[in-house]
Order: sequence, then C-alpha cells, then structure tokens
Amino acid sequence: MTKESLLLTDLYQLTMLQAYFDHGITKNAVFEFFVRDLDKRKFLIATGLEQVITFLENLKFSADDIDWLKKTGLFKSDFLDYLRELKFEGSVYAMPEGTIFFSNEPILQISAPITQAQLVETRIINMLHYQTLVASKAIRMHFAAPGKQFIDFGLRRAHGAEAGLLAARASYIAGFAGTSTVLAGKSFGIPIFGTMAHSFVQAHDTEIAAFMNFAESMPNNVIILIDTYDTLRAINKLIKIAPILKKRGITIKGVRLDSGDLIILSKKVRKILDKNGLKNVRIITSGNLDEYALKKIYDAGAPVDSFGIGTIMVTSSDMPYLNCAYKLMEYNGIPKKKRSEGKETWPGQKQVYRYYKNGNISYDIIAMRDEIFDGEPLLKLFMKNGTKIESLPSINQIREYVMEQIKHIPDYLKDLKKTDKQYPVIISDKLKKCSDNLDKLIIQNEDI
Amino acid sequence: MTKESLLLTDLYQLTMLQAYFDHGITKNAVFEFFVRDLDKRKFLIATGLEQVITFLENLKFSADDIDWLKKTGLFKSDFLDYLRELKFEGSVYAMPEGTIFFSNEPILQISAPITQAQLVETRIINMLHYQTLVASKAIRMHFAAPGKQFIDFGLRRAHGAEAGLLAARASYIAGFAGTSTVLAGKSFGIPIFGTMAHSFVQAHDTEIAAFMNFAESMPNNVIILIDTYDTLRAINKLIKIAPILKKRGITIKGVRLDSGDLIILSKKVRKILDKNGLKNVRIITSGNLDEYALKKIYDAGAPVDSFGIGTIMVTSSDMPYLNCAYKLMEYNGIPKKKRSEGKETWPGQKQVYRYYKNGNISYDIIAMRDEIFDGEPLLKLFMKNGTKIESLPSINQIREYVMEQIKHIPDYLKDLKKTDKQYPVIISDKLKKCSDNLDKLIIQNEDI
Repeated sequence: MTKESLLLTDLYQLTMLQAYFDHGITKNAVFEFFVRDLDKRKFLIATGLEQVITFLENLKFSADDIDWLKKTGLFKSDFLDYLRELKFEGSVYAMPEGTIFFSNEPILQISAPITQAQLVETRIINMLHYQTLVASKAIRMHFAAPGKQFIDFGLRRAHGAEAGLLAARASYIAGFAGTSTVLAGKSFGIPIFGTMAHSFVQAHDTEIAAFMNFAESMPNNVIILIDTYDTLRAINKLIKIAPILKKRGITIKGVRLDSGDLIILSKKVRKILDKNGLKNVRIITSGNLDEYALKKIYDAGAPVDSFGIGTIMVTSSDMPYLNCAYKLMEYNGIPKKKRSEGKETWPGQKQVYRYYKNGNISYDIIAMRDEIFDGEPLLKLFMKNGTKIESLPSINQIREYVMEQIKHIPDYLKDLKKTDKQYPVIISDKLKKCSDNLDKLIIQNEDI
Repeated sequence: MTKESLLLTDLYQLTMLQAYFDHGITKNAVFEFFVRDLDKRKFLIATGLEQVITFLENLKFSADDIDWLKKTGLFKSDFLDYLRELKFEGSVYAMPEGTIFFSNEPILQISAPITQAQLVETRIINMLHYQTLVASKAIRMHFAAPGKQFIDFGLRRAHGAEAGLLAARASYIAGFAGTSTVLAGKSFGIPIFGTMAHSFVQAHDTEIAAFMNFAESMPNNVIILIDTYDTLRAINKLIKIAPILKKRGITIKGVRLDSGDLIILSKKVRKILDKNGLKNVRIITSGNLDEYALKKIYDAGAPVDSFGIGTIMVTSSDMPYLNCAYKLMEYNGIPKKKRSEGKETWPGQKQVYRYYKNGNISYDIIAMRDEIFDGEPLLKLFMKNGTKIESLPSINQIREYVMEQIKHIPDYLKDLKKTDKQYPVIISDKLKKCSDNLDKLIIQNEDI
C-alpha cells in the first residue's frame, strides 16, 4: 500500500485545496476521526492506524497523477506545482491500535497545515472505517462461543481485494487464530489455514480417492471436507481409511462440516469419531455463520472446535458501515464546530480519559486537550512534524492488547443484543462550555 | 490491477493444487459462477468481467511469491516449479457486462485444466461479487426517483481502496452520472464531480467569505454547501453574493443540502432561488440516502435535481453480500453435482436463453450447453486458449446496454419492495434429467 495513488480521494478535496491555495488559507488545522453512534455495537475496536501512518509517511503525488489532473482543466498550474511538492508535515495523536472505544471519542487527531490535513480525509476514513468495522464485528464471536477457535474465511465475498486482505488483519487483531487468505500470511505474518473445497472431492471418482489423495499430499494438514454428498456416509469412509493412513504415519487432524444442521451433525460425527478411536480429530464448521448462529451451536453443547467465519464478518453484514466522520475541530488555534442538523460536532482538540472500577472499565471522559484528568489518557502521539516518533507495535502485540482489554470489560458490553444500557461517555464541563460559546459566536457571525 | 499477487487467494486452492499435481489430476474442468438466490433484489446486473479477463490474462506467480510459499514448508519443490510456470490457458464464456440476470444462471463459465480453473476461484468470486452487488443496488435509484441524476459519493466508507474504486465503475455502469472518486476518473474515464466540505466553510471566519473564495477559485464549478450552520440563512447569503459574482462572469451552478428534512428544505430553497432570479441553480442533496429515502423525496415532489449516493450504495447496506458461488460443473467431460444440504448445484456446462413478450423480457431457460433453444443465448465466448478473442466493450457501451435493457423489463421487476412474484427461470428437461441421473450415480458410487 506504499505506492498507492493520491487520486484515490474525493474530487472536493482537490477543489478545496485549490481554493485554500489561492486565498492563502494555509494555517494549521486539527481534524479528528470519530464514530457518531455505535448502533448495534456495544463498543468498537480502533484498528487501521498502522496503514494510516504508512499512508501519511508516503504521501506524494506521482508525476503521472499531476499530468492527469492538468488534463482535467480544473486546476491552475501554480497549484499543480504546489501539489507536486506536497508531503505530510503534521502530527498525529491516536488511540493505539486495538483500543476499545465508544461514540464521539476521537481515535485519531491530525494536526497539520489545512491543505495537508484536508487532503487525507477520504483515504483516512476509508482505512480506519473498514478495519474498525471488521474488528468490532469479529470480537463478538468470542462472546457467542467463548474459548473456541475462529478463522477468517472471508476473502471471496469481501468487498474487493483490499477488504479481503485487511479483514484478515482486523479479525486476527480481534483474536481470530488466523485466516485462509495466503497474502495476509505473507503481508502481516498471520497464521494461514486451509484444506479442500467440494470441487476437490467432485473431481475424483469416489470420495475415498479424494480423501486418500489429499492426505498423501498434505500429510501434516489432513482436514477432510465431509459434506459434499452425504456427511454421515463420508465420516464412515474416513473411519475406514484412518487405520490405512496411520500405518503410513499420517494422522487425520480434522473434519469440516459446511452445510446442514451443524448441531445435530457435529454431535453425530463426534460420537462416531470417538467410538472409533479418533478422539483427537477436531470438528471444524463453516457456512455463513454469524455470532447468533455460533451462540446457538455453543449453547446446544455442539462439539465444534473451530469455526470458519467468512462473509458475515468481512462485510459486517448486520451493520455494514459505521456512522463515522473526520471533522475540522480547530483552525489557526480557534475551535470550530459544525452545526448541521443531527450532525453537530464537539469542537476543539480533545483527549479521552478512561476510568476503572473493580478492575473493569467504568466510564470515559471526553475533555479538551488542555484539561488534565486523573484517568488514563487514550490518545498518544505517533507522528510529529511528519515523522513517526517510535516504532509501532507488532500485530501480535496489538492482538494481546485487545485480549487483555476484553478481560476488563463489564458483562453488559458482551451482550450480543442491542440494549439500552450504554457505556458512560461524559463530556467535560469545559468542552460543553466551549461548544455553547461557539454556538453563540456562530449566531453573532451570522448576523454580520 | 495487472500486477496483483496470486497469493490473494484461499490457502485451500494451493493445497488442493498440490494434491492435483501429485496425483495427475490435470484434466479439463468446467466451473461456473452463479448467484443462488436474489433475496432482496428482483434482478442482478452482471458486472466485473473486464477485471476478471485482465486477471486471467496476467495470471502469473511472482518469484517473490514462490519464495514465500517455499518458506511455509507446506509445498514440495517440484510443485513450486510447476506453479512458477503456471498461466491461464482455458476458455471463458460469460454474459456480457451489464446483462440482467437471475438466480442460478451462470454468468461466467471457466473451462481449463483443473489446476488453473481451481486456482482462480477466490479472486474471481471476489471480483464478480462486489461489482455485481453494487451495480444491482445502484440501478434501484432510478426506480425510486426516475429521471434524476445520481453521483457516487461512496469512497470514504467503501470497504477498502478497491471497493471504492470499483463501486464508481459499477454504479456508472448502472446509469450513475459519475463519481467523486478522482482515481475512477483517471482509471475508467468516468466523469468526476465534487465541490466543498463543511470544513472548508468552517476554516473561514464567515460563510460568505467561504462561498466567495470557492467561487473565485472554481468559477466553472460553483456548487455551494449550505448546511454547515443554518441552511436558510446560508441561502440568503448566496442570494446576496450572486449578483456580485455575476458581474465577474461567475454563475452559481448549484447548492448542496447534506442534512435536515430534505423535502421541506429543498422546497424552501427552490422558492427562494426562483424568487431571486436563480432558476438555473440546481439543488443537490446527499447524506446517507437510500432508495427508500429517494422515493419519499421524489414522491413528495421535492425539487431535487441531483443525488449524491454514498455509503448505502457502495456497501449495499440492506444486503451487503450475494449468495454466490463458483462451482465445479464438469470434470474430464463428465457432469458433476454437489449435493450438500441447501447448496445443491445444477450440473454440467450450461447456456441461458432469454425470451421476450410484447417487447419486455418474459422468462429464461437454463439449458445444457448442447441443447438448442430459439431464445437469445446470453453466454458468449470471451477467451479461448487463454487469449481474449475480441476487444471488450467500453464502459459507456456497457452503460448504454444496461439503460437499454431497463426499458424492456416488466414493472414488477422495478418494485423496490420484496415481493413473492419472481421472474420465471425454467430449468430444461434435459438438465433436470442429467441432475437426477447424477443423484443415482452418486448413490451407486457411495455403495462401492
């Protein structure tokens, strides 16, 4: 993602930049990214910061892109010369990746000359929105089926290439064991999983031939798909070949169920496996499973060890987008506020403080940057003057951080259903007052 | 997208390929892509073929990818040598991009040695699924608000970079006027649109200053955002500056409303504009609009000229995925069938025939490839022996093809609500018989 085109943005960023440039509006601006409301989620997990920082570090228009902009006839040539030299010289405060957060809390704060801070809006939203959406969906699987293993199977129905790749990252951060997406293994060092599809079984004259051929070719990874024709017949074939494979030093590691009543089938399959000395063979299921299906399977005591979770997680199907925004909070040192109906913002540079009670998170305060509270400050400095100030945590460190936080959240945040009880997010008195004052000021300006 | 990594696939494709390679399973296979059921849609629009063909033409593992696969320790070195040389040598039948289609109808058919046809599964689904999903959502806007202009504003909340870019393409094909995504302009020649954000207004001391500065910098593209603080006050400011701008030869082209009650506001704004000699100023609205919101606005006679459609279209938010699959239909000349519960397939190589009545599409027949019907055959040859057989239609030709078809669909297919009435898709007697025979054959094989 280091060589991406800066034209992956909304045209209005560039038309606004032309106007900023023409009129010398180049002072420092502070923008913040936040989610307005959580809707069907009880909390969100901040994800995507690493990609944002890489994007900012490499921010540069290619000569080819500038040439193309010229051809549109929309822009003046001195402005295009200016764009040619543009790079990111600002600072970035953010919640570390993996931080649990709530509505209206900024998870990223960009402070830079307004042209730079404005230009990056579209892609920054695009990057933070998607991974945060997926991580915040993926974490729910743990609450539905505690202690089970989850694997991302979602690439095929993810919305495009990047979504598939980044869903693997986001779900791993949210505690998944790994992914079927090979490139995510190469790009992020995530464990990769995979066995066989129905087509493999169908391409053989008999299921037994398919099972044998696969076991011989992948002796350390023998997981057999058993629902192509008839699950119970297939499992009996497996019982027949298990001793033959054993003699050749090959152990069957698991079976995968992809259709039918997974509760009934997994119980039957477990029974047959156990009766035939195959207690160590794991049962893996897949097939459009969401957290509600998982919970049913788990609550029924179905002996499923591992779940392949695909489409519903990578599309966050019950809530395919977050009501998120990246808004101007301050220009040239002066707090700014948007008053559009239903979309008002809290003005100014902010900090978020978190409080704990009996070891669990208890409430947050959103305060102005120059206020000091005794809670844990969540926004930390990651870039200064366009330069990363320290190395970022590894993906495994981020994942451990998520798993640690999950131990310290109250039960009502783990409830899968939408309920009225919300985590308390308090707006500081000073921030409220700043907002009220701006309302008055804007109305005064209106009257001029 | 020509240099993408072939590791953007599921691991099981590669483990299966190892087993195919080891056991000499390399005969010709036919796979088909289809959508099992339409769920909330009345019809779908086949989109993404151009990207699939480019992908197949450029299919090649990089040396770097092979090296990485070697390091995983999962694959044998003679197999990796084989992968190094692998390219696509098969043929592709497909419905031309933009074709309207229905459940169970193959829109793509790949015929190639099984290793090649298997390997491409994940990315082909990923490519066809997303654009088809978006085009099939976008087309509904025309039924909600006939004759209006629609512009894609979705990049920021699209699921990643590729989704944002391809949503612009898919929605343009479905009759949108253009997109805010600049790179889609460069990549696909789609018209680009864009004006200003709230931050632009906020960065100025007064709204009037913001409006004037923008108009001076973008004299041919003056569309003013009027809801940052108070819509009706803003429109009155615009009335004041219009004559000043006119003297300088600058015409205000439009105003954009992004919040509040769009029906009431657009009517008030239109009245004020008209009363002040600004009849030619267009009203553009945006703000999480879906087809149901559009229909309300349209039915209320709101004087909106143009709609910016973003999140709900690029995420297809009411139905964020299609129940689609890419399945083995034939191996070594023998039809194949998957019998998994609820996921049975129609076997064999197929053709789809379309019938018309009184100028409208009337019903389709899904037949075996060697049957001849007098309807219009929808699957056409696009690649042979790994080579594209003719140049593909331009994006504007595809768009015109969609717009032409829309004129020839019955009204019940334009109904936004989910209803029981479905377009008739008939399975030919020969295909049914082939399927029944395979059921018997599979059961016989089971008994061996």
